[in-house]
Amino acid sequence: MKQTLHIALAQFEVIPGQPILNANAICASIANARQQGAQMIVFPEMAIPGYLIGDRWEQPSFLRACQQAGEQVCQSTQNICAVFGNVAIDWHKTNEDGRTRKYNALFIAENGTYLAPEGSPVPFIVKTLMPNYRQFDDSRHFYDARKLAADMRVNIERFHAPVVTQHATIGCVLCEDAWCQDYPLSPLANLAQHHEIQIFINASASPFTLNKNHKRNRVFSAHAQQLDRPMLYVNHTGVQNNGKTIYTFDGSSCIYDAKGGRIDIANAFEDKLYIQEIPLAAGVAFAPQQPLRQDASEHAATALLYGLKKMTEATGIRRVVVGASGGIDSAVVATLFCKVIGPDNVLLANMPSRHNSQTTKTLAQSLADNLGAPYVEIPIEDSVALTTRQIHGLVPLTRQHDAGIPLTLSDFALENVQARDRSSRILAALAAAWGGAFTCNANKSEMTVGYTTLYGDLGGWIAPIADLWKRQVYALARTLNETFFPNPVIPEGMFTLKPSAELSPDHNVDKGLGDPINYPYHDRLFSSWVEWWNRATPEEILTWYASGELHQKLDLPEPVQSIFPNAAAFIEDLERWWKLYQGIGVAKRIQAPPVLAVTRRAFGFDHREAQIAPFFSTDYLSLKSSMLASASTSI
Amino acid sequence: MKQTLHIALAQFEVIPGQPILNANAICASIANARQQGAQMIVFPEMAIPGYLIGDRWEQPSFLRACQQAGEQVCQSTQNICAVFGNVAIDWHKTNEDGRTRKYNALFIAENGTYLAPEGSPVPFIVKTLMPNYRQFDDSRHFYDARKLAADMRVNIERFHAPVVTQHATIGCVLCEDAWCQDYPLSPLANLAQHHEIQIFINASASPFTLNKNHKRNRVFSAHAQQLDRPMLYVNHTGVQNNGKTIYTFDGSSCIYDAKGGRIDIANAFEDKLYIQEIPLAAGVAFAPQQPLRQDASEHAATALLYGLKKMTEATGIRRVVVGASGGIDSAVVATLFCKVIGPDNVLLANMPSRHNSQTTKTLAQSLADNLGAPYVEIPIEDSVALTTRQIHGLVPLTRQHDAGIPLTLSDFALENVQARDRSSRILAALAAAWGGAFTCNANKSEMTVGYTTLYGDLGGWIAPIADLWKRQVYALARTLNETFFPNPVIPEGMFTLKPSAELSPDHNVDKGLGDPINYPYHDRLFSSWVEWWNRATPEEILTWYASGELHQKLDLPEPVQSIFPNAAAFIEDLERWWKLYQGIGVAKRIQAPPVLAVTRRAFGFDHREAQIAPFFSTDYLSLKSSMLASASTSI
Repeated sequence: MKQTLHIALAQFEVIPGQPILNANAICASIANARQQGAQMIVFPEMAIPGYLIGDRWEQPSFLRACQQAGEQVCQSTQNICAVFGNVAIDWHKTNEDGRTRKYNALFIAENGTYLAPEGSPVPFIVKTLMPNYRQFDDSRHFYDARKLAADMRVNIERFHAPVVTQHATIGCVLCEDAWCQDYPLSPLANLAQHHEIQIFINASASPFTLNKNHKRNRVFSAHAQQLDRPMLYVNHTGVQNNGKTIYTFDGSSCIYDAKGGRIDIANAFEDKLYIQEIPLAAGVAFAPQQPLRQDASEHAATALLYGLKKMTEATGIRRVVVGASGGIDSAVVATLFCKVIGPDNVLLANMPSRHNSQTTKTLAQSLADNLGAPYVEIPIEDSVALTTRQIHGLVPLTRQHDAGIPLTLSDFALENVQARDRSSRILAALAAAWGGAFTCNANKSEMTVGYTTLYGDLGGWIAPIADLWKRQVYALARTLNETFFPNPVIPEGMFTLKPSAELSPDHNVDKGLGDPINYPYHDRLFSSWVEWWNRATPEEILTWYASGELHQKLDLPEPVQSIFPNAAAFIEDLERWWKLYQGIGVAKRIQAPPVLAVTRRAFGFDHREAQIAPFFSTDYLSLKSSMLASASTSI
Repeated sequence: MKQTLHIALAQFEVIPGQPILNANAICASIANARQQGAQMIVFPEMAIPGYLIGDRWEQPSFLRACQQAGEQVCQSTQNICAVFGNVAIDWHKTNEDGRTRKYNALFIAENGTYLAPEGSPVPFIVKTLMPNYRQFDDSRHFYDARKLAADMRVNIERFHAPVVTQHATIGCVLCEDAWCQDYPLSPLANLAQHHEIQIFINASASPFTLNKNHKRNRVFSAHAQQLDRPMLYVNHTGVQNNGKTIYTFDGSSCIYDAKGGRIDIANAFEDKLYIQEIPLAAGVAFAPQQPLRQDASEHAATALLYGLKKMTEATGIRRVVVGASGGIDSAVVATLFCKVIGPDNVLLANMPSRHNSQTTKTLAQSLADNLGAPYVEIPIEDSVALTTRQIHGLVPLTRQHDAGIPLTLSDFALENVQARDRSSRILAALAAAWGGAFTCNANKSEMTVGYTTLYGDLGGWIAPIADLWKRQVYALARTLNETFFPNPVIPEGMFTLKPSAELSPDHNVDKGLGDPINYPYHDRLFSSWVEWWNRATPEEILTWYASGELHQKLDLPEPVQSIFPNAAAFIEDLERWWKLYQGIGVAKRIQAPPVLAVTRRAFGFDHREAQIAPFFSTDYLSLKSSMLASASTSI
């Protein structure tokens, strides 16, 4: 038996829904790896079709194209073994939806033929564990190995079998198969029964999530040590989306040895064909011991820049207009785009009304100057006046021409008129004239409670920072200034400015007036509703407030007593935002632009919600009553 | 043994996400049924929590509330047996996502205690088959009986067991459990092994879909005959949604006897407590033989009116503004709302520019007169001129104040300026002044290919007719005129008018100019892409065009040769719309309003899609090349 294997890991940009392009890229990598002496090459999960492609799986012509592309790859494996993800199709059977039977599969091809796992009922690896949480949708389209085993009346273990290739015996799993802690079976444990396996492979399609690599390294390194064999992790780069949410794929492919060592084959988001000579004996240490560096804000910046770059390429949008209010959110968005497509292609537009301060106008202009981006100022006063003239006082008439009641545009309505005028009238037209699109600069705090105007500041082709809480936006701004530009571009005044919509005299920044959201507190409160794996609701929040645990549970920067004078004020605030989050916030998110995801729960497809009434449990209502009663008694 | 059972079927409006309200309604029905002498009462699937509630299942406090509400119902079953759907929770186990273990379950309570199925490992019925298609999302949240059997290492058959109640032995399943044709097991077939079962019950949460009842009656009636026992089907009424798509629930609960007879217990969409004495012997005919009346357009009208009524109630929107262009789409939307909330609450707004004909203005005014609805005319000319003045010729400057290039607003850009001005500037402000919301009048044909303007005619709080092809909109208009009003309200001129956006001189209706969509042909083409279970793509379409089968495959009203002079023209048209459907159409749908569903594939959650490049298969491209080559050769 040979002592080592020359193996190539292909971390590459899978183009979702384009099997021909992907197969061509795969074949080129195979040729390249062979030329460099590799005996085996490993590609990610679903490397041919892509992973997030919506319901394109329901098109038989697309499935045939994937099959043809797979055949092309197979034919290109002279003198090399290729492991690659593709959809496997059984045209003679059906899924449980009555459509053609499909598997999320891993193929092993060598010298122009497919190699089947030893003793497996099917000639490829079938994904066994299908994630059914977050944005994952596998079980909608694919028949998993558990169902297949039940259907064929064979033991599931038969699917978890070694593949004997010319130069090594390998054990392969797909993505979730190695994240089995909450499942009743472990494909890796089944494979471990086959002691002849020399190398384990995990082919994945795993989106970037802040801090996920740390966990993966912990879990996968433990697998390799327990298996006492090297384990390879190969993942996509690129950007894929499911409509409402856009995911970056960071690759972060690596090799784990049996002793806790790890080789990161490339930088995050970098395409690379990496070749390594791996000892085939069990229990060998050959990779360095290394920790994973943690720097959330820098990781977020890298992911966002990469995502925006790929999305501009994918959509053909080469120029953008950013409504530059003078605040931190639009500044960060403008800065990100300047980095991605160059300042010449980023038009900053300030659209003042009578409520906008000289402070913010100056800050917006300074930002454009610092970035070297073109800048225009287009006031909205005339249009708002026209809208008011056309609607305020107008009397709708019926057939009988009886005197109707004149319509009134309230001050609150006029705030939204301004916001819509900026985005839907000016920015959209400006984008058309500029030959591009305009951006949505909303952050996650605003998105949560719908503190945005539909067709106003919630409009735009993409929402680059809508998965970042306000404090993360500030941190990102700081990181951009310090790490990504030679000199700071985001003016210091934006960091100290009171966040404000500047839509009414109540929002006067020079008087320290502004948003009703107390970001340091509400960001963390909203996160407990939106992001926690088991979500908090007013019941838990009020319970912790009552027990004095809230500060610790939410990791608050200041005592809650310094924000709310008493329980009544706390409860009023709690219910106000809960109702907005579960009410108008939902209605607005339905029509919100795609969000670029960075956390493990972005709005959109991974935050399923219905337009239904907010719910307050009996336990919450009882606790509230008793707290308010005791408060009034104590007075 | 008793010869008959007095059984009540409770077809009622389940309020999604409101367990306390639903439990109260259930307890009231139980008391009512008992008073009327019923020995048993059956409620739908998920009668306590509701069915489409997004990720509210991830809130432990909500789960506790559902459990408490179930307990309340159980306690109210003195001298009666109640069968009701609720989430069952095992706080000591986890789902495969690591969250608390949840089942979509059916509880049987009698005299204040729960009755367990005979020999089942759990004291309730667990849904076995989880639909993983259309809008269904069960497997994201619930552990099914197959997984549970595997986890407990018991036979699945043990879960399909009779429940012995005081007055009858029943066999219960949940919704999909009786739609087993594509699954490898049948819960009903397992139950049928227990010959002591006297009545079968299917508790469902099944949304309205045009023509579905016909199929259900066929399938369920066959079940009853095969089981040789009566079978009850109990379903929700009301409206539930998953954000992007709104589903009506028609109830249509009924009783099937063993000989093919059927009792429809209520009208569609009607809440009813229906009590029937059912013979308990096998093979008895007691229900009349009756067909299901088919009238798609009337059914669609009923479903839409019901859906709009319930959505206005649920959202508190009591008044709407409809942009009335003079065309058929906005007329149908205005008419539906007049029927639902009364013409006094529906404000029609015509917003002419220089491109709008007197023809359409007159038609819009006539519609308002016929409906008795208030009407306003608000021109957009001044605003469009202002926008043009502010942007056309504007020179963006950079820091160096170097001379930039003046911006140009193209004619095409000005079309969108007009559309956005109407919706985002006028209708939104008008709605605020009117104290309501404005509607989106887009139809399914327009939605498919994005023949709409974002923040323009695609704006609105709800899209009532966006699941209807243009021809279905005409049919609906006809039905509304003929069936729902004493005199026609939609002017006859709207039926003969050429559909047109009237945004440029190219759209002059008086010259017979208008939309680029040839609705009779494109509606059917688009349907094959959007609605077919196995979706057609350009590959199939071109293949059928080449083989002469297209006319029959798409059920075209006229020969395709009379639409396109040659293959080149056919292909150009095909690719144009395919690219729009897969391209900008997706981008627009991401930000589109909620669609009220009537067909079996509405846009939104049941039409998952990614913003990715359109795909043309190699087979398509080859066929296209050969067709174009042979065409040019023949010339």
